[in-house]
Amino acid sequence: MPDSPSTTPDFSQPPFAGAPAARFEALPADGVLPEGFFSTSNLPTYVHVGGRWVAPTRPRMDCVVVKRGDELETIEPRRLKRGDLVAMGEAEDGSQGIVVHAKGFLGVVHGANEFRFMSTEVSRERPVNYEELAARVGEEKRRGGYLVWVVGPALVHSRARADFEWFIRNGYVQAVLAGNAVAVHDIEAAIFGTTLGMSNTGQPTEGGHGLHMRAINRVRAAGSIERAVETGLLKSGIMHALVSQRIPFVLAGSIRDDGPLPGVYANTLEAQDAMREHTVKATGAIFIATALHAIAVGNMLPAFYLDGGAPSPLMTICVDQTEFVVNKLRDRGTHQAYGVVTNAQDFMHVLRFYTERWEQGTP
Amino acid sequence: MPDSPSTTPDFSQPPFAGAPAARFEALPADGVLPEGFFSTSNLPTYVHVGGRWVAPTRPRMDCVVVKRGDELETIEPRRLKRGDLVAMGEAEDGSQGIVVHAKGFLGVVHGANEFRFMSTEVSRERPVNYEELAARVGEEKRRGGYLVWVVGPALVHSRARADFEWFIRNGYVQAVLAGNAVAVHDIEAAIFGTTLGMSNTGQPTEGGHGLHMRAINRVRAAGSIERAVETGLLKSGIMHALVSQRIPFVLAGSIRDDGPLPGVYANTLEAQDAMREHTVKATGAIFIATALHAIAVGNMLPAFYLDGGAPSPLMTICVDQTEFVVNKLRDRGTHQAYGVVTNAQDFMHVLRFYTERWEQGTP
Amino acid sequence: MPDSPSTTPDFSQPPFAGAPAARFEALPADGVLPEGFFSTSNLPTYVHVGGRWVAPTRPRMDCVVVKRGDELETIEPRRLKRGDLVAMGEAEDGSQGIVVHAKGFLGVVHGANEFRFMSTEVSRERPVNYEELAARVGEEKRRGGYLVWVVGPALVHSRARADFEWFIRNGYVQAVLAGNAVAVHDIEAAIFGTTLGMSNTGQPTEGGHGLHMRAINRVRAAGSIERAVETGLLKSGIMHALVSQRIPFVLAGSIRDDGPLPGVYANTLEAQDAMREHTVKATGAIFIATALHAIAVGNMLPAFYLDGGAPSPLMTICVDQTEFVVNKLRDRGTHQAYGVVTNAQDFMHVLRFYTERWEQGTP
Amino acid sequence: MPDSPSTTPDFSQPPFAGAPAARFEALPADGVLPEGFFSTSNLPTYVHVGGRWVAPTRPRMDCVVVKRGDELETIEPRRLKRGDLVAMGEAEDGSQGIVVHAKGFLGVVHGANEFRFMSTEVSRERPVNYEELAARVGEEKRRGGYLVWVVGPALVHSRARADFEWFIRNGYVQAVLAGNAVAVHDIEAAIFGTTLGMSNTGQPTEGGHGLHMRAINRVRAAGSIERAVETGLLKSGIMHALVSQRIPFVLAGSIRDDGPLPGVYANTLEAQDAMREHTVKATGAIFIATALHAIAVGNMLPAFYLDGGAPSPLMTICVDQTEFVVNKLRDRGTHQAYGVVTNAQDFMHVLRFYTERWEQGTP
Repeated sequence: MPDSPSTTPDFSQPPFAGAPAARFEALPADGVLPEGFFSTSNLPTYVHVGGRWVAPTRPRMDCVVVKRGDELETIEPRRLKRGDLVAMGEAEDGSQGIVVHAKGFLGVVHGANEFRFMSTEVSRERPVNYEELAARVGEEKRRGGYLVWVVGPALVHSRARADFEWFIRNGYVQAVLAGNAVAVHDIEAAIFGTTLGMSNTGQPTEGGHGLHMRAINRVRAAGSIERAVETGLLKSGIMHALVSQRIPFVLAGSIRDDGPLPGVYANTLEAQDAMREHTVKATGAIFIATALHAIAVGNMLPAFYLDGGAPSPLMTICVDQTEFVVNKLRDRGTHQAYGVVTNAQDFMHVLRFYTERWEQGTP
Repeated sequence: MPDSPSTTPDFSQPPFAGAPAARFEALPADGVLPEGFFSTSNLPTYVHVGGRWVAPTRPRMDCVVVKRGDELETIEPRRLKRGDLVAMGEAEDGSQGIVVHAKGFLGVVHGANEFRFMSTEVSRERPVNYEELAARVGEEKRRGGYLVWVVGPALVHSRARADFEWFIRNGYVQAVLAGNAVAVHDIEAAIFGTTLGMSNTGQPTEGGHGLHMRAINRVRAAGSIERAVETGLLKSGIMHALVSQRIPFVLAGSIRDDGPLPGVYANTLEAQDAMREHTVKATGAIFIATALHAIAVGNMLPAFYLDGGAPSPLMTICVDQTEFVVNKLRDRGTHQAYGVVTNAQDFMHVLRFYTERWEQGTP
Repeated sequence: MPDSPSTTPDFSQPPFAGAPAARFEALPADGVLPEGFFSTSNLPTYVHVGGRWVAPTRPRMDCVVVKRGDELETIEPRRLKRGDLVAMGEAEDGSQGIVVHAKGFLGVVHGANEFRFMSTEVSRERPVNYEELAARVGEEKRRGGYLVWVVGPALVHSRARADFEWFIRNGYVQAVLAGNAVAVHDIEAAIFGTTLGMSNTGQPTEGGHGLHMRAINRVRAAGSIERAVETGLLKSGIMHALVSQRIPFVLAGSIRDDGPLPGVYANTLEAQDAMREHTVKATGAIFIATALHAIAVGNMLPAFYLDGGAPSPLMTICVDQTEFVVNKLRDRGTHQAYGVVTNAQDFMHVLRFYTERWEQGTP
Repeated sequence: MPDSPSTTPDFSQPPFAGAPAARFEALPADGVLPEGFFSTSNLPTYVHVGGRWVAPTRPRMDCVVVKRGDELETIEPRRLKRGDLVAMGEAEDGSQGIVVHAKGFLGVVHGANEFRFMSTEVSRERPVNYEELAARVGEEKRRGGYLVWVVGPALVHSRARADFEWFIRNGYVQAVLAGNAVAVHDIEAAIFGTTLGMSNTGQPTEGGHGLHMRAINRVRAAGSIERAVETGLLKSGIMHALVSQRIPFVLAGSIRDDGPLPGVYANTLEAQDAMREHTVKATGAIFIATALHAIAVGNMLPAFYLDGGAPSPLMTICVDQTEFVVNKLRDRGTHQAYGVVTNAQDFMHVLRFYTERWEQGTP
C-alpha cells in the first residue's frame, strides 16, 4: 500500500500564481445547474475567490462547489435551490480559477529501466502485507482517526462475523455502512444459527429458506434493532456489537431487500445523506465484499483528509474475491483504493491475527 | 467437506450377481486399442474375471484395464504394446462384466453410466445455442408474451445500445427494469457520444469525467426523460426508443446514483412495487449484466407462468461475464435461470443476428 | 436451455389427497406476521382452502399467502395490516394443507422441502470450516497417510512460502507436484528476496525482470537443486525444505518455462509417469492455485483409496481464487473435489493457524 | 487498440551518442551463463558493437544476446555451449553499451485534466471496436503478414469451430499454436459430434466420458492427423482445415494430456523451439481462451516486428473470459496485449461477421 506525505501546494507558484478569480453562476431552477458548471473530483481542489485559494469543505466527486458568503462547500446538485451560486468552468489547471492538485494523489512513475513484470496494480498474485495493514489500522485507532467500514453480506455468510465483532468491540470501527442484507443475515445467524438457511459449516437446513423472513419478522415485532438487543432477542453478532458499543451504522435499502428491517433507509437519497455524514469525517475506509456499497461510498469519499490543513492520502482498502470490483471502484474514480483480492472470511481472520499481534507490540 | 464411510459392495446382489465375465481383446498395434475398449473413470471399479470380481490396481480415469495373468492393472494406452489384453465394453452396470461402483462417491444420481464430464450447469465452456434462444424469444413475440428485460449499465458502455434499441423497436421488449445508471449512460451517449467520459472506441476524452453530470443536468432542466425526447434533446438510444415506442420502464434508484434523473424511484420499496407489476405479467425474463437488479427481479419472479391454468416454466435467461452472478441468482432461489456466460455487447450482437435470421424464416 | 411441458398436478393423488385444510392466522400488528407463518417460494404452490386447492395469485418467493374472502394472494409482509389473515405452517408437502409442486421445476431432487438457497456446491459465499480441514489434514499425518500437495506459483508470489515450509517441516507433506515456475520463484525469493522482480511487499525492484533468469543460472551452475542446497546457495524456502527433509517432489515442465531448472522433466509423458507414482499412493490431495497441475493430477487421481480393502473417499481439496478452476476440475471428472475459494496466501496462513491449534489439542 | 507509427531511434542523440561499446563474456559451461549477463526484454534493443548499433535478430524476452562473428542473435540460455559469447550488463540506458528503446512501446501518458474514469486498460466494461479489429486482421492478410493464432480448447467446446475454420480457409491464419486438447476435442467433434461427451447444445451423452479416448485411439490407429484427413476419418473441423490448407501448426504437449495424439510434442523444449520458428516471423498474434499457451507464446513474442528496418508495434490481441488472463499476460511482460474480455464463441462469431463485412468493402 503506497503512502505519501501530506502536501500543501505552494500558492506562489504556477498553476496558482497568475490565475484569475473563479466565476460563479446562479442556479436557474431548483436542482438544475447552469450550463458549464465545474464538476468536482475527489482530489484536493482549490478555488480562487476573494484573492485567496480556498479548499471547499466536504469534498467529494460528482458534485458542485457552492458559494455561501465566504464559504465554499461541495454539494450534490439535487440539494440546491434556484439562485444558489456554483463555481463555473471545466478546466482543472487554474486557467479558470480552479486548481485540482493531483500531485501525489494519482499517477504512475517509472524509472530508467522501464520494462518490468507485475505492472498491474491489483492482482491476486501480489503479496498482501498484513503487518503493514494491521499497523495502519492500529495507527488510526491510536491517533483517534475515523475508520469507516463498508461491508457486504458475504462477510456474514462466511463466518467472519466473530472477527468483525472483535474489531467493533476493540475500537477499530467508528462507523459501519451496509445494506439491509448484512443485518438480516447477521440477525438470522444470531437467532437461528444459519444464513440463508445454510449452517455455518455450509450445509442446508430443512425449511431453511424461510429463516431470514422469520428473523426479520421477529425484529419487526420487537420494533427496532436496538430494541431487539435490549429485549435479548439478539445476544451476539455484528448488530449486537454495534448497538451495545454505540457505534453508528447506516443501513441503506436496495431493491433486492426483503423486509426491510426497521431502521433501514428505504429512500436511497436519504441513505446517501446519512452515509455522507460519515464519509466527511473519515480518515480511513475499508470496503469488504460489496460492489454496490463500495462504489456508492467511493463516490462520496475524498481521496484525502485534512491533516492539520494539509491534504493527506485517505487510506482506502478494498477487499474482494476478484480484481474486478477493485478495478471497477478505481474506474469510477477511487484511484487511491488499495486492493486485496481474497475471501472475506480469510481477510478478516488474518487481519485480526496481525492486529492482535500489533496490539501486543504496542506500549 | 462431506465425508462418507468406506463401502465394499455386496457381490451377492445386482448388479454383480448374474453378470457375465468381462471380455478382453488384444491391442492390434503398439499404443493402439481395439475398438470398443472399456474407458476407465476414477470411481471404484470391479471386473468379473475368473469367477471373481477384481478391482484393477492403480485406478485412474481415461485409461484401460489390462490383464496380465490373473492381475488387472489400470494403464495409459500409450504405454501398451501390441498383443496386450484390455477389457472391453462401454457399459458400467455389469451387463458386460464390469461394474462402476458410484454409490457414495457421487453426490447426485443420474443415469446408469453415472460418471461424466461437464456436470456443472453454468460454464463458459458450455456452448450457447443461439438459434434456440432466438427462437424462444421470437415465440414470445409471436404469441403475445410479456418479455421483461433487466439490464445493467455495462450494456450501454459496451456498444450494445444499438442492438437493444433494435429489440425494443421490433416488438421483443414489453418492459425494461433498470437503474438510474443505465439511463444516465444512455443519455450521456445520446448527448455527448461518450459513457463515463469514454468514447465508443474505449478512449478517454478530455474533461470526460463530468459529462454524465452534465447529461443529468440537461434532463433535469427539461423536466423529465419523456420531455427530453419531445424537445429533441434525446434523438437516439434506449430511453428514446422506450419513450417513442411507449414501452413501460421502471428505473429503480440505488445509493450509488448520481442525480438522479427525473422519474427514477428514489424509494426502493416503491421501486419494488412498480417492478412487481411487470413481473406478475411476465412470461419470460432476460437479465443482462446486472447483479443487483437480476437478484432483485429474481426474488419477485415466479418460476412459472400460467399457460391456460397449468403452470409452465418461465423462460429466464441470465447473461453475465462470469458464472458467479448466474450461480448467485440460482443460489438465491431462481433455479430456473439459464446462464449465458459472455460479454453483454457480444451477447446482444449475436442474439440480434440470430433473431433477424429467425424472423426471415418465419411466415 | 431445458424446456418442460406445463404440468397441472393431479389433486386426487398424494400429497393432495387426504391433506388437511390450511390454517390462517391474523397479523398481530401492521407489518408483523404471526410466528409460524408460511414463507413462499417461487414454485407452483397450492393451498387447501374451502375444500379446494387454490393457487395464490401473484406468486413470488419470500412472501406470505394472504386470504381475503375466497381469494388467496401472495403479498410482501411489509404491505399487510393488523388483522390480515396469512397461511400458516412450514411444511411444503401437504401435511399442513399447503403443497409446493416442485416436480418439473427443479432439476435435481433433494428432500421433502425442496426449494432452498445456496444449492451450488462451490461458492465464495459458503463458509469454510477450517477446524475440520485442519483436523482432516492432521488425521492424515497421525495415521501415516500419504498427502500429495499440488501447488502453483501464486503460492510463492503471495508470501505463503513460509507457511508451506512449515507444513513440509512438520510432516504434513508426503509429496509435492509442481512446475518449474514454483521452484524458480521460490529460488528467486531465496537468493534475491523477490519473485518476478517484485519484493515481498509487492513493489517492483530496479532491474527486477531479469532476476528469475539469474536465479535459474546459479542453480544451473551448481548442477542441481539438491546441490544448490548443499553448497548453501539456497538457505530457505520450499525447495530447501523439501531437499533437506527428503520429501519427494516432481517438477513437470511446460512450454512456458524459462530455464528450465535442472531436474525439471522436459518430457511431459515422463513427468506424468513420475507424478503417477505418487497419485497411486495418495490418501489425500491438496491443490492450491494451479489450473494446469490440478487438472493433470485430478486426471490421475482415483476418487478413493483402499482402506483395508474397502474403497474410502480420497480427500481432495482444491483451493483457488475463483470458483472456475474448482468447477473445471469437477467438470473434468474429479467430482470429489471440495472447493475453497480464496487467496493462496490467506488459505495457507489460516490452515496453518488451525493446524497448529489442532496439534496442541492432540495428545 | 492503440496504434503507433514505426520508430527508428536517432543514433546521433543520447542515450546512443557517447555510449561505450557493449561487453561480451564467454559461457563457463554448457547452458551456464557468466554472472552479470544482459537479460533481454521484448522491446526494441540496440547493442553497441564494432562502432555500430546493432539490433539482435530473433528478439524475445528472458534470453541473452549472443555474438557470433559480427552477428548478434537472441537465444535461450539452455541452447548455448561453453565459450559462446553473451552481452553483459544490467543497464538498459546505454551506459553499458545496450539501449532498450521503450519509447512508443510502453507507457501511459496523461493530459492536463488527470482525474478520469475507466483508467484500467482491460475491462469487460470497455467497448470492443470490432470494425477496427476486423480491419487490422484484414490488413494483415492483404499485405501478406504472418498472423499467429494461439487457441485453447474452450474454442472447440463453445461451437466456435466453424468460425475458426472459416478464418483458416480464407487466408487469415498463417500458423496455429495449440495443445493436444484443442486437436482432441476438435477430432472428437468431427468423429462423434461431441466434446468431452457433451453435445453441441451442451447436453451430456450416454457413455460420453470415453469418447475423447476413442477419438484419440482412431487417430493413433490411422498413424497421424494428416493421415486421418487423407483416409477420410476426419471430414471437417479445425485440424481438417489446417491439414487441407497446408497451414503449419504446432501442438505442444502438457502434463494434462490424454493420448497424446500423434504429432504432439511431448518434449516441452522441442515444442518451444518449434513454436518460436513461428513467433520470429509473426507480424500479428491472436490469443483465444488459453492461459498457458498465451503466456508461453507471449514470452517468445517480440513487442514489435521490423517494418522495413524500423520497429513497428506487433498487434497482439488476447481474448479471454476474464480480465485476469489478459492482465497476467501483461504482468509477464507482454504489455502490448490488447484485451478483449468475452466468450470465445461470441468473439469468433462477431469477428467473422465484421471480417466478412470488411471483405465486402474491399476492392
